[in-house]
Amino acid sequence: MAKDLDALLLHTLKDVYFAENAIAKALPKMAKAAKNDNLREAFETHLEQTKGQIKRLEQVFELLKQKPEAVECKAIKGLLEEGDEVASEFKGEPSLDAGLIAAAQAVEHYEIARYGAMRAWADQLGLDAVADLLEQTLQEEENTDDLLTEMAEGVANREAEVV
Amino acid sequence: MAKDLDALLLHTLKDVYFAENAIAKALPKMAKAAKNDNLREAFETHLEQTKGQIKRLEQVFELLKQKPEAVECKAIKGLLEEGDEVASEFKGEPSLDAGLIAAAQAVEHYEIARYGAMRAWADQLGLDAVADLLEQTLQEEENTDDLLTEMAEGVANREAEVV
Repeated sequence: MAKDLDALLLHTLKDVYFAENAIAKALPKMAKAAKNDNLREAFETHLEQTKGQIKRLEQVFELLKQKPEAVECKAIKGLLEEGDEVASEFKGEPSLDAGLIAAAQAVEHYEIARYGAMRAWADQLGLDAVADLLEQTLQEEENTDDLLTEMAEGVANREAEVV
Repeated sequence: MAKDLDALLLHTLKDVYFAENAIAKALPKMAKAAKNDNLREAFETHLEQTKGQIKRLEQVFELLKQKPEAVECKAIKGLLEEGDEVASEFKGEPSLDAGLIAAAQAVEHYEIARYGAMRAWADQLGLDAVADLLEQTLQEEENTDDLLTEMAEGVANREAEVV
């Protein structure tokens, strides 16, 4: 059978299912590493959101009559390793939170790219209910990215500047 | 010495310097893999742009009185490996170009996140000339991402749909 857009969508869903589960595992560590209380809370809130996004992916698998399945996503592994590196390299340093926020935004952008592509493919395939679920998560990821930008510009970047 | 925002900026510059060089190496392979002529040309054009972005990073190092240096960026390695995977798994298949575009957009989003953070840090540090160079690349990456969206929605996603 030809690997068409359905096959690409399913492949990418499995990749993102892996990614979301990896993110859910990483967020408690990032929350623990954060100095600023608001940033810690933001990571904790995003963990709850991520759990909902995992459920939404499971609904998508169901709509496509497939069992939820994860395939290793090397991109998210690399992105999360960079977050770990910044957490250990900048531990106790004034720029720790700014670095954690930037690492989290790199993860958000990965998800924005992935959900954006999958939403467009679902639209093209006329899978309206699937497109709708993917759009909901896409909006959440974009809002999280905006919130992180506000936190960086509002506090973390200033605190990181030693004058 | 405390690792402040200057240290974080320099660390991230080295990471992105590694990333841009890795992307410059990967783009000819992506261009070769693409079926559609316009997509191949878009990858070739972006290679030229990437070479200019590498030069711009070298100017930033110079402005900061540092030698250009790369530190391994695990995120870009993972992102580019995903591109390789899609190129081999979907080789000769109708959804190849749609998959290549999505992989390239994940890379663009990584760069958008990184340049966005670095530009904000340079602003915070009052490094106007540095912020200006980073902003130029950020604009190019955003334009490339938009172009890839147009190519996906215009042709690649439709060609990938076997009806």
